[in-house]
Amino acid sequence: MVYIPKHMKWWGWGDVEAGFDSNAHPHFWPYAKAQLGIERDTPLAPPVPLDAVQLPEATVNSRFLAELRSALHAGQVCDTRHERVVHAYGKGFRDLFRLRRGSAEGAPDLIVYPENENDVMRTLRAAARHDVAIIPFGGGSNIAGCLERMDTRRMAVSLDMRRMRRVLAVDAESCTARVEAGVFGPDLEEQLSAHGMTLGHFPDSFLHSTLGGWIATRSAGMQSDKYGKIEDMVLALRMVTPEDVLATRMVPKSSNGIDVNHLCIGSEGTLGVITEATMRVHPRPESRVVPAHLFPEFESGLEAMRECVRRECTPSMVRLNDPDKTALSLAFKPPSSRISRAVNEIFKRYLRVKGFDLPRACLMLTAFEGRKEDVSSRLRQVSPIYRRFGGVSLGPSAGRSFESTKYDFPHIRDFLLERDVTTDVSETSTVWSNILPLYRATMRAMRAAVAESGVPPWSGCHISHTYHSSASLYFTFGFIQQQGHEMEQYLAVKRAAQQSFIDHGATLSHHHAVGTEHLPWLAADISPLGVRAVAAIKQGLDSGNIMNPGRLCPSPDAFREWLRIGGEPRANMKAKAAPFR
Amino acid sequence: MVYIPKHMKWWGWGDVEAGFDSNAHPHFWPYAKAQLGIERDTPLAPPVPLDAVQLPEATVNSRFLAELRSALHAGQVCDTRHERVVHAYGKGFRDLFRLRRGSAEGAPDLIVYPENENDVMRTLRAAARHDVAIIPFGGGSNIAGCLERMDTRRMAVSLDMRRMRRVLAVDAESCTARVEAGVFGPDLEEQLSAHGMTLGHFPDSFLHSTLGGWIATRSAGMQSDKYGKIEDMVLALRMVTPEDVLATRMVPKSSNGIDVNHLCIGSEGTLGVITEATMRVHPRPESRVVPAHLFPEFESGLEAMRECVRRECTPSMVRLNDPDKTALSLAFKPPSSRISRAVNEIFKRYLRVKGFDLPRACLMLTAFEGRKEDVSSRLRQVSPIYRRFGGVSLGPSAGRSFESTKYDFPHIRDFLLERDVTTDVSETSTVWSNILPLYRATMRAMRAAVAESGVPPWSGCHISHTYHSSASLYFTFGFIQQQGHEMEQYLAVKRAAQQSFIDHGATLSHHHAVGTEHLPWLAADISPLGVRAVAAIKQGLDSGNIMNPGRLCPSPDAFREWLRIGGEPRANMKAKAAPFR
Repeated sequence: MVYIPKHMKWWGWGDVEAGFDSNAHPHFWPYAKAQLGIERDTPLAPPVPLDAVQLPEATVNSRFLAELRSALHAGQVCDTRHERVVHAYGKGFRDLFRLRRGSAEGAPDLIVYPENENDVMRTLRAAARHDVAIIPFGGGSNIAGCLERMDTRRMAVSLDMRRMRRVLAVDAESCTARVEAGVFGPDLEEQLSAHGMTLGHFPDSFLHSTLGGWIATRSAGMQSDKYGKIEDMVLALRMVTPEDVLATRMVPKSSNGIDVNHLCIGSEGTLGVITEATMRVHPRPESRVVPAHLFPEFESGLEAMRECVRRECTPSMVRLNDPDKTALSLAFKPPSSRISRAVNEIFKRYLRVKGFDLPRACLMLTAFEGRKEDVSSRLRQVSPIYRRFGGVSLGPSAGRSFESTKYDFPHIRDFLLERDVTTDVSETSTVWSNILPLYRATMRAMRAAVAESGVPPWSGCHISHTYHSSASLYFTFGFIQQQGHEMEQYLAVKRAAQQSFIDHGATLSHHHAVGTEHLPWLAADISPLGVRAVAAIKQGLDSGNIMNPGRLCPSPDAFREWLRIGGEPRANMKAKAAPFR
Repeated sequence: MVYIPKHMKWWGWGDVEAGFDSNAHPHFWPYAKAQLGIERDTPLAPPVPLDAVQLPEATVNSRFLAELRSALHAGQVCDTRHERVVHAYGKGFRDLFRLRRGSAEGAPDLIVYPENENDVMRTLRAAARHDVAIIPFGGGSNIAGCLERMDTRRMAVSLDMRRMRRVLAVDAESCTARVEAGVFGPDLEEQLSAHGMTLGHFPDSFLHSTLGGWIATRSAGMQSDKYGKIEDMVLALRMVTPEDVLATRMVPKSSNGIDVNHLCIGSEGTLGVITEATMRVHPRPESRVVPAHLFPEFESGLEAMRECVRRECTPSMVRLNDPDKTALSLAFKPPSSRISRAVNEIFKRYLRVKGFDLPRACLMLTAFEGRKEDVSSRLRQVSPIYRRFGGVSLGPSAGRSFESTKYDFPHIRDFLLERDVTTDVSETSTVWSNILPLYRATMRAMRAAVAESGVPPWSGCHISHTYHSSASLYFTFGFIQQQGHEMEQYLAVKRAAQQSFIDHGATLSHHHAVGTEHLPWLAADISPLGVRAVAAIKQGLDSGNIMNPGRLCPSPDAFREWLRIGGEPRANMKAKAAPFR
């Protein structure tokens, strides 16, 4: 019996039994209401029942199906309502909003669960022979629109990789691990820990995303400052295309022409299916500490981050919240005892004495991990830098609270959706000298876009993922929905953020992929010739356009069809948003 | 007046006035003679005079030429004998052997010196319109056969980039520099030093190679352990293709689909011409020390390197010679005074007491640079590790000697060629656990290949360029030539080394490019589908196949033609080598 990780709930984030518990975070909803101008609670808007979800009538290619059924066993092929709905979308706002209201037009006709590379090859070859679209599916956590079908004229198959989950080999001397691509984060770490190793990749989606998904979307984990982004960790990989297997050697650095690993990394399922990868791994850290600091303002916190990079002593994770996100973090705190409230009051008084203007103060969370002595020595380097820029240590509780809730944030969106509040995120990266100008311009643009629909805007940002020359900016936004214009509102804000990134020299996404959500900005980001180069690879490896059609370099036909079934005319990003359906 | 860096001597390495001075290294030639079985000096074999070099009759495409002359000024277009010979080849053994004997069949018909991106665009567009081949040329230092023309049926132009040499902008806060791609190493460092910055890229070819050449071949500098390989330093670039410009944004990390920077990096001139790049730069180091150690044997030196990686305290450069390369290094020492000879004798006695078996001892050169305190702290971490594995410090003289001669090694080949001795190199990289098996197998294979021609083999290796999971192996070989079979001898050894790399899981080159020299092993390295993917990009961006034709994904026609004009049937690498011409 093959072990299969569970699917997330079809209408939201995480396991069915998990969710945001407002009793555990009693300050959160009052904070949100005050910020968003919600005067009183309205009746909850739960998702429709599964039976009420509208599915497109399945397109059945019977010759393909016959070939597939002769190649795989019955338990690998599935077309139940629940499976189709679960595989219809990722977990972006657009995805969840549509599902909760009962629309699953993006659903595939069939779900296939390969158990080895040969299964993948047979499925892809049959699909190529019979003109069936294949949408590779990892954990389904993507929020950029990578997973919905964009074409109903032919059969679409979601290729769910979760049964290919084994760590195949670990070389402890070289610190490498060869791993099947369908493995989920916790499962991977558990298998590696048996060898004393860790991959060191912990994205927010860690519990519900897979190695193959990380590689196909150029994911970044929270501790990328120490361990690198996923593309830095790949030594070799295997990618099955409709015709053959692209396989590279376990050599971290080479001069063998164009690095074909990088044709597969970030390919978002458009060329083939990544079936395994050999990854750089690390001895499990002996020690881990998660200090938190408060800085007098955003700018000084940023300077402190930058100085750590300059001195080559970055933490393994650093996350600097702006004042709004700091307020949100404080509102997210668990209920406090009378004593801790008293201590808090004393601490606030202390901060005022230190010259803090509290509404401008910024929370910085950090993590340090590795050998005990290295962690101590790094802390000794970093602490005086933080102090120099006015940082005040918050003691261990803020870090503990972050550690215990770090994978829970996406649940908040479900909680808010139920209360007719839209929230989502847009993130990017830019060089150090551009961070503040980009931050200010993007905050202005997002708030203006919300305000245009006549409701109060909330937005905040954190800076994280530091590199020698740059860091990432992660914006969160929220507002109350105007009935009948929800999608229009969302798209206006999303578009404002993305356009600001591009107008200010940044990239369309630091770690969330292009998908359909960011596709209108791809040519501006990598230049029209860059898109043509990607299209050329696509043409060379998938001339039948069966692999995740409509992403990275969509044919005009496919894009048009996608618009017809529920998309929005974002190809022309300057045009006013059309109302959703 | 545009400043133009000089060309290297056409028949060998370096400036015309530079060369290997055997008086400054009196032990070298006696060592070489003893090792190679040379009993007495024979008359020197100097290169033929320039006038005697046979050049192919120039193929002139007059419509192309007319268009070019109307677009550029007269000083940018050149077809003199000297220029054609200088641009005929790089500096590999095959290149120099042919030139010294008077054959320059690889010479282009014309040399063009663009002064800005517009010049490059106009040249490429004219070439595309009139079916003229373009061979981008940086410093001409490549040793993998990247530069010779492979096709005499159409006009070939060497596009010499050296006039595009400006640092265009430096962002000191973000540590980035935007630079024209034709700049040479010393010129680049001089311009950056005016901003207090360094790129940190110091390949052996540093004096005679360009930024664009480094990027197009995935070069590695001596200090890649600290600063990374060139592909790690590129934030953005511009590449002119026959139709358009591929331009990426200054964002170090992104999730914008396939990373198109990596389509340009390593493209070896086959897609377009890299005209500028934005590079990660670093504050110039305050301090630099170059300690040298002797280890009891190769294995213990390797363990010490590996342990520094494991403890995250690598030097900025580390180079561990095997016993043969250690002996070569000792033979390369400058003449010593009577006192220093006496000191040496005492030191040797000390080593014997410490248990060293001197013929097995291995020299390790290291460099540490950065802030003073960081250099000291790193030395404090590394020194006990070296001691633990038996390393004995050699004092400052070995490091000083390395520093003063580090760019001189290629001169030795010219000195030896003049004495009918062939030498060249093959290098690769592999994971830590595979270094010793690969080292032993490759040394055996190379020596057997030399021995087959009946002469004594010399070969040695150094390990350098450490990474988390791997390092590079750099093999050097030498032997006396058998008249009339020089090329056959060379190819047999080169083939033995390359085949050993591939048979043992390593890559065809760590930093010397594919060129024509390593092309027969490309499909084995990146898989046949990998080559097809590269060919697909080529087809998409250069459908007329005008950019450096015959590299990375040659058409069978072009490869056949190349064989006709002086190549060797290495496409079938198992076949016995055909005699050269």
